[in-house]
Amino acid sequence: MQKYRLKLAYEGTDFVGWQIQPEGVSIQGLLEKGLETLLGVPTRACGAGRTDAGTHALGQVAHFQAEKPFDPIVFQRALNGLLPYSIRVLELDLASESFHAQYSATGKEYHYHLWLEPIVTPFVHLYRYPVRFPLDLSLLEEAATHLVGTHDFATFANAGSSVKTTVRTLQRITMHPQEGGVRLEFEGSGFLYKMVRNLVGTLLEVALGKRALDSIPGLLAARDRRLAASAVPAKGLFLAEVRYPVEIASKVEVREVFTH
Amino acid sequence: MQKYRLKLAYEGTDFVGWQIQPEGVSIQGLLEKGLETLLGVPTRACGAGRTDAGTHALGQVAHFQAEKPFDPIVFQRALNGLLPYSIRVLELDLASESFHAQYSATGKEYHYHLWLEPIVTPFVHLYRYPVRFPLDLSLLEEAATHLVGTHDFATFANAGSSVKTTVRTLQRITMHPQEGGVRLEFEGSGFLYKMVRNLVGTLLEVALGKRALDSIPGLLAARDRRLAASAVPAKGLFLAEVRYPVEIASKVEVREVFTH
Repeated sequence: MQKYRLKLAYEGTDFVGWQIQPEGVSIQGLLEKGLETLLGVPTRACGAGRTDAGTHALGQVAHFQAEKPFDPIVFQRALNGLLPYSIRVLELDLASESFHAQYSATGKEYHYHLWLEPIVTPFVHLYRYPVRFPLDLSLLEEAATHLVGTHDFATFANAGSSVKTTVRTLQRITMHPQEGGVRLEFEGSGFLYKMVRNLVGTLLEVALGKRALDSIPGLLAARDRRLAASAVPAKGLFLAEVRYPVEIASKVEVREVFTH
Repeated sequence: MQKYRLKLAYEGTDFVGWQIQPEGVSIQGLLEKGLETLLGVPTRACGAGRTDAGTHALGQVAHFQAEKPFDPIVFQRALNGLLPYSIRVLELDLASESFHAQYSATGKEYHYHLWLEPIVTPFVHLYRYPVRFPLDLSLLEEAATHLVGTHDFATFANAGSSVKTTVRTLQRITMHPQEGGVRLEFEGSGFLYKMVRNLVGTLLEVALGKRALDSIPGLLAARDRRLAASAVPAKGLFLAEVRYPVEIASKVEVREVFTH
């Protein structure tokens, strides 16, 4: 058996999310179907983490195992040929036996895209959350500093996942101006269920003047989901990157190049 | 009667093009339906030019007339509320009696987007034409210089429109690097049916080494559509801007702003 690592980008609009569900089309489901077609046997694809319905990915990571040896470049091209254009395998590499897309991950980066102008251009309306009220972005940035660090994020976690602890470390929340608005980047050791969308919802309430800047430490201490704001929509959220230790991430570099 | 000028952006994928057709959904059709709903009478929207099925627009211009006076800002918001998110009215202004979206136009700018990397990211695959063979972009740029100027472009015009002359002036063809490839910009006095897509097809054949650089003047002189390359797909094409004389373009500036 050989283990392989996949890096994927997807446009989540039309899917029920990463994970296979009883109803609807999932990214994992289409990927496993493609792997089975190419490998001839049912093949499990294990992702670094679930993404919700409508959430997008620039760098989701998954692994699978295969008995039959193959050329990764040819295999990647064939797999992309079987997938819709809304899902692309960006990288396919050999992985060591010890690599596990979920358990080896040491961190993740999510991006949330806010649109702050009156009219959302047609080309990005599925990837931006439009905010129709003027925001004080300096308040948003200041509120974010209270969230960076190691905290119990239970207030910002929806029920629905079984985790041993709700303590997580956020290394960074930064704001980046871009066409039509801003992108918020969240880098952390791990994220609880709907945590980024719940954090953005609360940060927006601060930026709108609906919630006091200094209320954040108390919110964290309360460990009560009911005190935080509603989650913002999935369509603005991107899983940007999954991080691994250097010794695991280092791999044979095989990348598709022009061969014509 | 008061005349109004509209500036529109649209994502052309799901439409039969700008113009109303016997079958299918057109941008003009949805716009006129919205105008009728708001004005209470059937209302014609005249566009600066047709765009084909699948072609996008960043700055299509149209005009319409209305008997009933209204607040342009409120009207624009109501119209956008009636249109799908793939069509947006970016501007709505009062226009002078003499303004005509098609006949007053003095020039247009089109963009064609080429994707030059092996894997097209899911977020732009409907807006890029992927070229899977290595291109010599300096050859493409040099070939383009033979097309700039006043020429008879009959070789690059598909049948299907009635025009008095096939002579047009191209002021500029420029290439701009962007994520994953390049954008070709065409600025001209006017464009014949499928002219940009036919020009790009021929420029690509030069860049691929399939057609000699110095064949362009002969192609123009031949006035024979069969000699040029096939048109490239509509999905890479954007109507970027329609130009008008300064005295016509100057107008009362009414723009939607935050009013909450």
